[in-house]
Amino acid sequence: MKHRKTLVKSKRHTKPGSSPGQIAFADSTPRPSIRVIAYGPEGRTDRQVADVLSIIELRKAYPVIWVDIVQFGDAELIAAVGEAFGLHRLALEDAVNTHQRPKVEEYHDHLFVVALMLEDHEALETEQIAFFLGDGFVITFQERPGDCFDRVRDRILTAKGRIRNSGADYLCYALLDAIIDGYFPALEKQGETLEALENRVVSSPEPHNIAELHDMKRNLQLLRRAIWPHREMVNNLIRDEHPLIAAETRPFLRDCYDHTIQLMDIVETYREIAAGLVDVHISSVSFKLNEVMKVLTIVATLFMPLGFIAGVYGMNFDRQTSPWNMPELGWYWGYPFALLLMLGSAVALLWYIWKKGWLR
Amino acid sequence: MKHRKTLVKSKRHTKPGSSPGQIAFADSTPRPSIRVIAYGPEGRTDRQVADVLSIIELRKAYPVIWVDIVQFGDAELIAAVGEAFGLHRLALEDAVNTHQRPKVEEYHDHLFVVALMLEDHEALETEQIAFFLGDGFVITFQERPGDCFDRVRDRILTAKGRIRNSGADYLCYALLDAIIDGYFPALEKQGETLEALENRVVSSPEPHNIAELHDMKRNLQLLRRAIWPHREMVNNLIRDEHPLIAAETRPFLRDCYDHTIQLMDIVETYREIAAGLVDVHISSVSFKLNEVMKVLTIVATLFMPLGFIAGVYGMNFDRQTSPWNMPELGWYWGYPFALLLMLGSAVALLWYIWKKGWLR
Amino acid sequence: MKHRKTLVKSKRHTKPGSSPGQIAFADSTPRPSIRVIAYGPEGRTDRQVADVLSIIELRKAYPVIWVDIVQFGDAELIAAVGEAFGLHRLALEDAVNTHQRPKVEEYHDHLFVVALMLEDHEALETEQIAFFLGDGFVITFQERPGDCFDRVRDRILTAKGRIRNSGADYLCYALLDAIIDGYFPALEKQGETLEALENRVVSSPEPHNIAELHDMKRNLQLLRRAIWPHREMVNNLIRDEHPLIAAETRPFLRDCYDHTIQLMDIVETYREIAAGLVDVHISSVSFKLNEVMKVLTIVATLFMPLGFIAGVYGMNFDRQTSPWNMPELGWYWGYPFALLLMLGSAVALLWYIWKKGWLR
Amino acid sequence: MKHRKTLVKSKRHTKPGSSPGQIAFADSTPRPSIRVIAYGPEGRTDRQVADVLSIIELRKAYPVIWVDIVQFGDAELIAAVGEAFGLHRLALEDAVNTHQRPKVEEYHDHLFVVALMLEDHEALETEQIAFFLGDGFVITFQERPGDCFDRVRDRILTAKGRIRNSGADYLCYALLDAIIDGYFPALEKQGETLEALENRVVSSPEPHNIAELHDMKRNLQLLRRAIWPHREMVNNLIRDEHPLIAAETRPFLRDCYDHTIQLMDIVETYREIAAGLVDVHISSVSFKLNEVMKVLTIVATLFMPLGFIAGVYGMNFDRQTSPWNMPELGWYWGYPFALLLMLGSAVALLWYIWKKGWLR
Amino acid sequence: MKHRKTLVKSKRHTKPGSSPGQIAFADSTPRPSIRVIAYGPEGRTDRQVADVLSIIELRKAYPVIWVDIVQFGDAELIAAVGEAFGLHRLALEDAVNTHQRPKVEEYHDHLFVVALMLEDHEALETEQIAFFLGDGFVITFQERPGDCFDRVRDRILTAKGRIRNSGADYLCYALLDAIIDGYFPALEKQGETLEALENRVVSSPEPHNIAELHDMKRNLQLLRRAIWPHREMVNNLIRDEHPLIAAETRPFLRDCYDHTIQLMDIVETYREIAAGLVDVHISSVSFKLNEVMKVLTIVATLFMPLGFIAGVYGMNFDRQTSPWNMPELGWYWGYPFALLLMLGSAVALLWYIWKKGWLR
Repeated sequence: MKHRKTLVKSKRHTKPGSSPGQIAFADSTPRPSIRVIAYGPEGRTDRQVADVLSIIELRKAYPVIWVDIVQFGDAELIAAVGEAFGLHRLALEDAVNTHQRPKVEEYHDHLFVVALMLEDHEALETEQIAFFLGDGFVITFQERPGDCFDRVRDRILTAKGRIRNSGADYLCYALLDAIIDGYFPALEKQGETLEALENRVVSSPEPHNIAELHDMKRNLQLLRRAIWPHREMVNNLIRDEHPLIAAETRPFLRDCYDHTIQLMDIVETYREIAAGLVDVHISSVSFKLNEVMKVLTIVATLFMPLGFIAGVYGMNFDRQTSPWNMPELGWYWGYPFALLLMLGSAVALLWYIWKKGWLR
Repeated sequence: MKHRKTLVKSKRHTKPGSSPGQIAFADSTPRPSIRVIAYGPEGRTDRQVADVLSIIELRKAYPVIWVDIVQFGDAELIAAVGEAFGLHRLALEDAVNTHQRPKVEEYHDHLFVVALMLEDHEALETEQIAFFLGDGFVITFQERPGDCFDRVRDRILTAKGRIRNSGADYLCYALLDAIIDGYFPALEKQGETLEALENRVVSSPEPHNIAELHDMKRNLQLLRRAIWPHREMVNNLIRDEHPLIAAETRPFLRDCYDHTIQLMDIVETYREIAAGLVDVHISSVSFKLNEVMKVLTIVATLFMPLGFIAGVYGMNFDRQTSPWNMPELGWYWGYPFALLLMLGSAVALLWYIWKKGWLR
Repeated sequence: MKHRKTLVKSKRHTKPGSSPGQIAFADSTPRPSIRVIAYGPEGRTDRQVADVLSIIELRKAYPVIWVDIVQFGDAELIAAVGEAFGLHRLALEDAVNTHQRPKVEEYHDHLFVVALMLEDHEALETEQIAFFLGDGFVITFQERPGDCFDRVRDRILTAKGRIRNSGADYLCYALLDAIIDGYFPALEKQGETLEALENRVVSSPEPHNIAELHDMKRNLQLLRRAIWPHREMVNNLIRDEHPLIAAETRPFLRDCYDHTIQLMDIVETYREIAAGLVDVHISSVSFKLNEVMKVLTIVATLFMPLGFIAGVYGMNFDRQTSPWNMPELGWYWGYPFALLLMLGSAVALLWYIWKKGWLR
Repeated sequence: MKHRKTLVKSKRHTKPGSSPGQIAFADSTPRPSIRVIAYGPEGRTDRQVADVLSIIELRKAYPVIWVDIVQFGDAELIAAVGEAFGLHRLALEDAVNTHQRPKVEEYHDHLFVVALMLEDHEALETEQIAFFLGDGFVITFQERPGDCFDRVRDRILTAKGRIRNSGADYLCYALLDAIIDGYFPALEKQGETLEALENRVVSSPEPHNIAELHDMKRNLQLLRRAIWPHREMVNNLIRDEHPLIAAETRPFLRDCYDHTIQLMDIVETYREIAAGLVDVHISSVSFKLNEVMKVLTIVATLFMPLGFIAGVYGMNFDRQTSPWNMPELGWYWGYPFALLLMLGSAVALLWYIWKKGWLR
Repeated sequence: MKHRKTLVKSKRHTKPGSSPGQIAFADSTPRPSIRVIAYGPEGRTDRQVADVLSIIELRKAYPVIWVDIVQFGDAELIAAVGEAFGLHRLALEDAVNTHQRPKVEEYHDHLFVVALMLEDHEALETEQIAFFLGDGFVITFQERPGDCFDRVRDRILTAKGRIRNSGADYLCYALLDAIIDGYFPALEKQGETLEALENRVVSSPEPHNIAELHDMKRNLQLLRRAIWPHREMVNNLIRDEHPLIAAETRPFLRDCYDHTIQLMDIVETYREIAAGLVDVHISSVSFKLNEVMKVLTIVATLFMPLGFIAGVYGMNFDRQTSPWNMPELGWYWGYPFALLLMLGSAVALLWYIWKKGWLR
């Protein structure tokens, strides 16, 4: 419960009615760190840079360059990078304004892609990754340090697979694929939690089950909301036949698209199971109530008549005044008779209750 | 509860079967106030005008003119403005008849756009804003004074951003954007309320929770109903390639479109969470009932047998008449025996209850 | 409850497998009344006619003729009218067979339109109005006397608005518009009822609330089922660009289409609120049960132990036989001690109950 | 309940993986009966035939021939008919394998249409009718004797309507129309049952109501599942412009299509009402429980305190030992005082209960 | 319950970010077994092979070759087969990575098809079957030994039906058809279970019913999730007019498509019935509670007043001190009067209860 993700994201930077295309940050935003990996079939380099000039040099030296910008606390530097690669102002604003949905936008000579990377915290949280894919370059904008790209970097640096022989479009695919595949472990974890919860809900009704189910449903909805637009985004990349994306890369993107469909499939299955468990829970609670009430009713049905009989023979009518006043009290077998009467009532009632099927 | 928005809007002006294209008002409608902001790269003016002639003059003097008409209590004046700019009669009727859905309609040489501005009252209320976008002019019709355009006016007057160098289409975008962005704070407020409600519902079942959930669901539905058609309206503006909308303005409208999608996304998420909370609430109420009934059953199960034993030994059978009549009463250890019998019953029953798991 | 509309309409006239295109009526069907309004820019006439010849003459005399046939109890007369205007047999059968859904069908030289007019009875009921729109004529078939066209007739007769200067297509639009606008007052009435019901449901659970909610949902569904196909019907009229519908009339039909969307919007909103109220009602009923059970449990929890104590000291153990037999009865402070014991139990139990939060 | 239709149909004939296009039957299948109606504008004949040759002769003699095959227990005969008319093997297999959905399939020179005829048994059951429509012939395959075509046969034999002057396509329409119209009476019957059930559910909660509602929902679903594909099937017939279907027949099929839409409309309305009734039923059951519990609580709240007072004055404290031991028992007005105390408690409690609104 | 299928599949082989198109296995994966069936109109052969060369030879010798690879524990062998037939690397990876959804992918000169075969275990489980369809060859990749293709093999080997005279596309259809038809028996089994469950749920509320319903819903959902993409897959095969699929084969695929629609139809029907049964169950549980509470209330309402009367006459007021102290005790008919009073109360209360309709 403590880790429930808040619904309201941190406030948006821009106010309604303010001018678009502006890049501005609170002073507390940390300064950007820029890591450049440039490579080609013949070689590669991996450098931490601080100015735009070194980026431009590297771009000239290698067929493909990947500029990875983490944190955005230097509006001028970012604007300079944007200018160096001819990026559209509005797209640049979107890249550093971390409230976008996954999407792809086509500009004159570059594509702008936004994806959401799942972070491996206790609560499910996503981090926006913006991509610019142009002729021979990929520029990524990450909100926070830490990502799921280490295997891709490794493949570039150690020349594993076909990545060193492919263009920037293949790099873009590889990064997108890493982001999308990152949802599988999180979904598997949710699946395990759901299964444990399922077993608990089916076996016994606990009051906290419903709260956990609610949290599970919220998490699944957040995952669904994060995954769903990726599907359309990857589909747009495939369908629109951008010249920046080579025909050879398209089957790989199609594979990536299949993964988004699989993810949606799993999320929807889990959501439906979780929805069904709410019914199971409510039904179990009702059933438990029935059980409790049966016990109460059996007890009351048994002892109220017995207590009544005892009450009758506890009355103080004056046997001296009249032979009609409680002659039973003076009978020789009075007390055993009363006990037998009680026993008989109890047996009859138990038989009635048993016939009703309440003792099962 | 007190601020629940009424479902039935104030009655429509026109009766079924009456002639379309007519502009008529109740006498109580306040007279219009017209504010004209005309501007170009070189300069700008901001004036309150009362007649059509001054508007026509300003239109000639500046590249772009924004005529902002607030309140419609002068049918002739409005008709004169409509004639001056060549506006279609039907569109003009729609502009002052404040029961439209957001939409865009294309006429010979102008576009007619209707949007709904969220007002910042206690209850969520929308105000219709109608736009006419033509060659070099934007005319807005507002139902009531007070709007969210002050930042746009400021950008024009202080020449901030690109607005002074752009045409009427950009002005139109800037106003639409201000209206759409105005929904975000309202949604954030609903999100905070929903979260507080979520915590209350999950932690304990209060009778007023369900009423608050119902109000929350109603508010979200009203927001959804207001936001949804904006999405299509902005999409139509982008897709239909009206000559009045420059290619440079289209990316900005696309940005605006993204915002409507984000708004819908948030509303749907909130709606789903609110729907789930109803289940949580109903389940909690049932669970609370179980708790109450358990206590009742435990008390009854304990004390009914005990009371019965006490009742038996309170019977008045005449011990003189027969040795079988309640000999226990005369035993030396009779009373302690009875108390032990009761204690034994109580222990046995408690053990039974404990075994049932009701004491948890 | 009494006015609940029956689900099963009066039996259809034709039996499965019988020949199509036939016009036949039960003898009890009242004979048709035919009112002809013919007009043009120069003049107009309004006559009750009984034979086809006078209709043909009027058709020649005026640019536009509106033949309004109410009730269909004369198959020959109707067939004669159909022949005079060249109407398709199947369409004519549909016009007098009052079980159609709103639709538009294109025939060689005329359009056949079916609409449902809402009648202002206690129960929501619709009456089928069939239109034939041809070159210079509109023929309407009404099931019963009484309609919502009086304002349109008035506009023709007093030459209000543009109707006298427009063609038959504009007349057709004006009639459709009158029918569609006729749903607004009915919806507003439902909205008011819903709101009153909402206040009742939220404030207290009454058993008849759910029955009223059910009736409300039924009414809204009937309205939805009536309104929904009008939307498609008007859309078809606009989209298919029939040569019979002039370009000038299209914006008016678009306006009409907007109204059908608004109607659907309102109906769906009401339906969703009504569905939500069912949950509120069920939850309130459960909560009320909790309240009742709390009182019962408090009473039982308080008085069962007290009653038990009283029962113990009502036992008749023979104090003579043994010093262990209820010595309390002979104590000097015995009775006050017993009362204090009871008071103590009561206080302890109340404290326990209070701690449980049941006295709130 | 007894007539609930089973979910699992009789086992399919073919096993997974077996060869398609084969016609084979269990030996118990009854032998086919073939009735041929051949007609033209000039004459008609109606014969029961047993071999293919007579069919071929009749086909030559009349413009239109309708071969009606009932039951399929002679694979060779059926194959011979198929060959005589050039029917596709796969379609022929589908025609005699009675597990098809309504559909239309286009082959080289004939159309293959499958429809489901509603049978008028106690349980709702459908019978597959397969049509082959070719140049001048209609061949129908019926699973069982008994159909809804008698009126069509009558129209052919007595030359009623246009059927004798029309081609095979019109015959095919007439048969389809008879099948589809056959759903209306069944739906009307369901509607009456639903209405009766509605009245019962709204007025009082009986335990068997929910079982009946469940059966009603199942029946409606079976109807929906049967009707739904007819809609698409008829639509395909209209839309695909098969040369076998004359333009004059198309308006009739359009009429038929309208009927399928009306049927779906009614089914959906009933389904929604039935779904709403489940809520009404559950709510009523809850409400009834409230009523019962109120009575229990009132009784317990009244009599437990009274019983307690009586219990107190039934204690046996020894008044001799101490003046503090139950002096009330010796008061002159002791008994009346106790009775008044009880009365006072009862009045106070009743007032409390009345204030709670439980006596209403 | 024990056989509930786990939600989380065995972990995926590839890690997020790793290189695509790689074929790698855990060492424990069993080595592949390859069975080749090659045939033509003139002859056929059926061999277990271990190397690629013998496959290539067989391919040359016969018009159609079917290579059936079961288990994938030899990456090199599989890569060699892929190379021999010119299969795309990515498709080959998908074929051995058993987490695909049913789909069809078009490559240069072959089609790649993935299907899920239902396995006949206790829990519903699917096994991935990947097909490569090329010019004269079909290659299938099976995850585990055991399949539903024995009848197809038999048809090839015994030259039953048209299979020996048809091409590889017909073989591919025959295999797909066998897979899809394999779902019918499983669905029929689910249908029987559902029906048994339906009878139990409708007749009496047992606590385990809801758990079984939940399992049924899960099973149906898994079936739906497995069947659904087959529909689109087969549709793609038909619609895209691949040159590899002959026009004669298309009607057979259309038949196959009809089967997927029928399967979906059945699954959806079952799902809806199962969903309705949850309501029936919850309602029955509530009703049972009502029954139990009625008994409790009747007992309490009867015996509490009686017990109270007995309690009153069990009070010990001192009749010596005052004539007002319980004179009834000294009456001649005191005791019979008290008994009659009790009897009267009981009768009155029973009458009240009977009037409430609780004894029915």
